Amino acid sequence: MRVYDLITKKKHGVKLSKEEINYIIEGYVSGDIPDYQISSLLMAIYFKGMDLEETIDLTEAMINSGDVVDLSHIKGITADKHSTGGVGDKTSLVLLPLMASCGLKVSKMSGRGLGHTGGTLDKLESIPGFNINLTKEEMFSVVNSVGFAIAGQTANLVPADKKLYALRDVTATVDNISLIASSIMSKKIASGADNIILDVKIGSGAFMKDIDHAVKLAETMVSIGKGFNRNVGVVLTNMEEPLGKAVGNSLEVIEAVNTMKGNGPEDFTELCIFLNSVMLKLTGIVSNIEEGRLKTNEVLESGKSLEKFREFISSQGGNIEYIDETNKFNSSTYSYGMVSPEDGYIEAIDAEKIGICSLMSGAGRETKESEINYSAGIFLCKKTGNQVKKGELLGTVYTDRNGIEEELRDMFMDSYIFSDSPVSRKETIIGLVDELGFTDLRRKVVN
Amino acid sequence: MRVYDLITKKKHGVKLSKEEINYIIEGYVSGDIPDYQISSLLMAIYFKGMDLEETIDLTEAMINSGDVVDLSHIKGITADKHSTGGVGDKTSLVLLPLMASCGLKVSKMSGRGLGHTGGTLDKLESIPGFNINLTKEEMFSVVNSVGFAIAGQTANLVPADKKLYALRDVTATVDNISLIASSIMSKKIASGADNIILDVKIGSGAFMKDIDHAVKLAETMVSIGKGFNRNVGVVLTNMEEPLGKAVGNSLEVIEAVNTMKGNGPEDFTELCIFLNSVMLKLTGIVSNIEEGRLKTNEVLESGKSLEKFREFISSQGGNIEYIDETNKFNSSTYSYGMVSPEDGYIEAIDAEKIGICSLMSGAGRETKESEINYSAGIFLCKKTGNQVKKGELLGTVYTDRNGIEEELRDMFMDSYIFSDSPVSRKETIIGLVDELGFTDLRRKVVN
Repeated sequence: MRVYDLITKKKHGVKLSKEEINYIIEGYVSGDIPDYQISSLLMAIYFKGMDLEETIDLTEAMINSGDVVDLSHIKGITADKHSTGGVGDKTSLVLLPLMASCGLKVSKMSGRGLGHTGGTLDKLESIPGFNINLTKEEMFSVVNSVGFAIAGQTANLVPADKKLYALRDVTATVDNISLIASSIMSKKIASGADNIILDVKIGSGAFMKDIDHAVKLAETMVSIGKGFNRNVGVVLTNMEEPLGKAVGNSLEVIEAVNTMKGNGPEDFTELCIFLNSVMLKLTGIVSNIEEGRLKTNEVLESGKSLEKFREFISSQGGNIEYIDETNKFNSSTYSYGMVSPEDGYIEAIDAEKIGICSLMSGAGRETKESEINYSAGIFLCKKTGNQVKKGELLGTVYTDRNGIEEELRDMFMDSYIFSDSPVSRKETIIGLVDELGFTDLRRKVVN
Repeated sequence: MRVYDLITKKKHGVKLSKEEINYIIEGYVSGDIPDYQISSLLMAIYFKGMDLEETIDLTEAMINSGDVVDLSHIKGITADKHSTGGVGDKTSLVLLPLMASCGLKVSKMSGRGLGHTGGTLDKLESIPGFNINLTKEEMFSVVNSVGFAIAGQTANLVPADKKLYALRDVTATVDNISLIASSIMSKKIASGADNIILDVKIGSGAFMKDIDHAVKLAETMVSIGKGFNRNVGVVLTNMEEPLGKAVGNSLEVIEAVNTMKGNGPEDFTELCIFLNSVMLKLTGIVSNIEEGRLKTNEVLESGKSLEKFREFISSQGGNIEYIDETNKFNSSTYSYGMVSPEDGYIEAIDAEKIGICSLMSGAGRETKESEINYSAGIFLCKKTGNQVKKGELLGTVYTDRNGIEEELRDMFMDSYIFSDSPVSRKETIIGLVDELGFTDLRRKVVN
């Protein structure tokens, strides 16, 4: 087999066989096939696509490039979640306690933040004492006792994806549904859970720019899941503005805690409840989403999910006092109030720009080596659709960095668009894709 | 400027500016842009194409990556030729004497053979004493006195093409008209001649598989020529079988000499006469191709072109006795007669397979370091369309290599297809593309 012939095949739209796909992935990971041949193949895949069988074969070849986690030591129904990422996305911090409160077992490996998006591990590490470095055994033990654990990688999962993604990222070959779906699903399947809920963000600030593509991606991921005997549900959600009101590490932990106390932002609360409702239906714990919603509201309102979160923090060494009294978290040296320059309505808040503003404040990493400032970040008082008066507070930027007030103000204000006439807030939940196909939920959600 | 953005642009079918194309070529040649980004860009170009302006800008950027030959020291009308290559293509050895006999000045840089195709330099070096290593000044001196010279590269022409071609060759991105046209034209334009004739081969054994694509390529090259103030004529010719009857270095020199003596194979003679006729029209020496043909026949039949060839060989140190008495050339140790296995007609002779058979005999180079055996090769007694009897001689394979008779016989016979019913020979000249567009010459040529 010659990779040249396989590039030619794909270039002419011919389907690649399982053996050919294995040859490509094994050769690439071993270093026998050079980057420059893979990047031309990736561009050919961008133009000619892969069918479902090829996509499943690719996912399997990627899974086989590394370790697969065996969750048989975990008692109960195993579940996992993944989000395509966004600014202010602290969903895991609330969803996992909800899932565990309903009896599911979640052993979640998370990542760190880079650039304008944050990482769950960084958020958790803003809690003094919290330990993300668990062995596989320690992690299973926390999952078995608490119901969920969150840690860094405990295994060498899908090295093929790391290498392929790094190449796609510099060769403009990220945006292909088969490549995205196999990248996400290979990691989730290798992580071992039987039930997987995926949050695919749509919008200017997200990976997927339109609903049609997002539905196609979601359907592909559900089908891949089926190919590996996993229940997969995909929730399509809006990412036109930051999720919730807090952006930054301890700020987001505080917001997650507030949400579990019933005082969370509307959009974020709605998303967490919906994701858990879908997961409950997916695992057969409830028979429909409405029932899932009732059950979720119950564990939320009873304080059970907050209690689960406390147990989890405590089990992984975190200081529980910060959860009980969130004003214990350090405050930043500087806090800059940002006020509206005019009377009107907020038409849009650019999530990526808010993410960059948060990065500038010190809350994120510019490079892998950057140090994070846990207290830095942004709190938004107003969101899209809100009416504002000239001089009214839009939000606050927190930072320990001196002399960058003007840049922070410019970047913050640059992310806002105002309108003279009323603007309706975009719905948080766009739709659901599961084994039954796509359900458009936009009308049901918007009032 | 970021190459990532330029890949994205081309991926979406957006035109690249002159500055962007310069940035890409300069960055690639300097090593600032890695292979893997260029190969994904090349694949995007394969799918989305480049318009004429981009193709001319690319050609210019490639020319500017190296030296440009200044032919102002040559007195008279400067001309050059190029062929897209084929098996048995010794056209330069006859066409350049014809051109020089008609008063044109040709300073031609040639290459060596690799794989199943031969190189003009190797063919000339089969003549004892012949020197292909001329300085620029020596070369101009031969051109000014004889009318033409053939040597290896005297300048660092288009290094961008060397690097790009090597990458295209391993990433399945060779077959794009803009990339082919800019590759050929950048070298011809950098070589300095005002008038350029190109021989584009069409057929299973050639680069271009069909006439439509070849016409498009030819039109593009004529337009590029116009953009650089060069007269370009493109002759589209058949490459379904080897050109002429001889394949191998001294065998081809002998065939070229025989052709200039009026005893050449029909297809090869016809091609040389036609190419020269077009060149004469292109340079305004004659007013139409028919007039060019008369003039070409005159210099051929009068022996003037053979005399030019003798002068040229002598000027570059070659032993003229080998031209005057071609039986002076060494003969091979072994000569294997290949006979027809059946009564019938020759339907096809696969040029590439004959080329590989010749390579096996020792006439070519398997790698850049291989030593060539000048006397080895193949002589075909019969060509497509000929009737043959069982046991009749089809051709002879010459070699000094011991113990490979069976492989040579297998490869030789594998290149033949026989038919029970008469087969008409395919026309040699398919058409002409010049400033007036495409002229289909198939009906005029075939009887």
